[in-house]
Amino acid sequence: MSDHLGWIAVDWGTSNLRLWAMDGAGDILARCESDLGLNKIADDGFETVLRDLVADWLPDDNGADSAIPVIICGMAGAKQGWREAPYASLPARPASLAAGAVQPPLSKAGLAVYILPGLKQVDDPDVMRGEETQLVGFMADNSDFAGWVCLPGTHSKWAHIANGTITGFRTYMSGEVFALLSQQSILRHSMQGADDAVAFDKAVKDVAVPSGDLLHRLFTIRAGGLVGANGGQTGAAQLSGFVIGSEIADIVARLGKGDSIALIGDGKLAVRYRQALSVHGFDSAIVDAEVATLGGLRRAYAVLTK
Amino acid sequence: MSDHLGWIAVDWGTSNLRLWAMDGAGDILARCESDLGLNKIADDGFETVLRDLVADWLPDDNGADSAIPVIICGMAGAKQGWREAPYASLPARPASLAAGAVQPPLSKAGLAVYILPGLKQVDDPDVMRGEETQLVGFMADNSDFAGWVCLPGTHSKWAHIANGTITGFRTYMSGEVFALLSQQSILRHSMQGADDAVAFDKAVKDVAVPSGDLLHRLFTIRAGGLVGANGGQTGAAQLSGFVIGSEIADIVARLGKGDSIALIGDGKLAVRYRQALSVHGFDSAIVDAEVATLGGLRRAYAVLTK
Repeated sequence: MSDHLGWIAVDWGTSNLRLWAMDGAGDILARCESDLGLNKIADDGFETVLRDLVADWLPDDNGADSAIPVIICGMAGAKQGWREAPYASLPARPASLAAGAVQPPLSKAGLAVYILPGLKQVDDPDVMRGEETQLVGFMADNSDFAGWVCLPGTHSKWAHIANGTITGFRTYMSGEVFALLSQQSILRHSMQGADDAVAFDKAVKDVAVPSGDLLHRLFTIRAGGLVGANGGQTGAAQLSGFVIGSEIADIVARLGKGDSIALIGDGKLAVRYRQALSVHGFDSAIVDAEVATLGGLRRAYAVLTK
Repeated sequence: MSDHLGWIAVDWGTSNLRLWAMDGAGDILARCESDLGLNKIADDGFETVLRDLVADWLPDDNGADSAIPVIICGMAGAKQGWREAPYASLPARPASLAAGAVQPPLSKAGLAVYILPGLKQVDDPDVMRGEETQLVGFMADNSDFAGWVCLPGTHSKWAHIANGTITGFRTYMSGEVFALLSQQSILRHSMQGADDAVAFDKAVKDVAVPSGDLLHRLFTIRAGGLVGANGGQTGAAQLSGFVIGSEIADIVARLGKGDSIALIGDGKLAVRYRQALSVHGFDSAIVDAEVATLGGLRRAYAVLTK
């Protein structure tokens, strides 16, 4: 394979990293994963970890005059990462994001490492690192898209896109709040029915009109069981519906004329967001998260190596 | 003192209990506290705990023909308590609440124990146990009050009162959400400035108009520090302001014409609620929580022993 290797794509997150060997045309030759995310790496360990993981992919004669480009997005560029890639500012276009990449000094030749910047928003403070690359990948395949793109997760992100530009974004702590409340609050006693679709839809509907009563709604999950108001064991579905539903209701209230909604993600969580969006009347396709990440890294590779 | 003892008032909560020796006129002769709340008592231990705590207060010849009334509010009446006192329903008046008291069987004479019921709301499910007695005490001293009474706490309660009747109530998980987020979420890294009054007021103002964006606001506490948008170390004050502020905004949006707002509580938390209410233009007096509890127990004593 090594004679076809064109470059290496890396998504280096907090808890793990994923790498792809790419040929010159941007097709995937191989992939690998590791749990050596930002949290597990000492200050100077990034280069060693990277070289270990890609060693088998490199040509035998790999040296300074044929350095393989490595394009990295994610937490490797955080202040506590490999080398800080300062946040880019809004509005952000794919080319300007790529132009913000930093190159960490390396101990030996053979690789040319580029770490992409995250994105910041000062007014209505917010930050992302990694998701901006997925958004770039999404835009590459959806050049006419105008509206909000959702990236579900522990801290879900919603970015507004228009004319091939990221114009703003909002992070919601929905996933972390769900985890803490379901495992450690008084609601832990009410966590049955995770997949009760009827209860989930009802909860999403209950919070469809933005209001300030989320902190009260949460307690009704517990109280509903005590007073017999809940139809069966539906606490987990209710909690999920209230949390995801209030997030979506807040975005729907911000939709401009002609704005669409799209989802980037995978697994059960993306399906749940899609279901909540359908309660609001939106039929949103789910773009695969890996496809979006690779699309964004491809775009950065093209900018950085031309 | 024993020759003056008229009855005993008890507030038996989840984590502790408080007892007052009362004379026939309802004045306090003595008081004591214990950490033997509901969570620390085995099934049949309630009577033993009670008798141990009040032993010194009882007259030497205390027996069946001179049984001392003991009026108990709180979690002793929960399903997992001493004896279940089924929730009373809305609308609730002081006399009907007292009439719902249950008498647990005792192993010997000398006491006549009454456990007061909690209160439930089926439509918009909610429950309380103990706070209803504080509300009764509040109404005894404020017979003309119409509006919402707030009882801050881990699960803060807001009750609507009119014409000497509790007509509805809402519990908010604000205190528990604050504790979990400040200690265990990503926001734990941003918890400086607990007493920053300016940042607290600003956060309350930021959420003064009810909206669905609380889960986003929370993340701005973290992001504001990263992008330099927060003026100094204000995370804890912001979190407190967002959580308490969104709760109060939800209540203010429900105020009817002529409705007042009052607070029952003590300590820093009640002061913080008062401050948040002042941001909304309300000047709410704080009624002492013990005064309210004893007022409610006095009222129940009068109903149950006449």
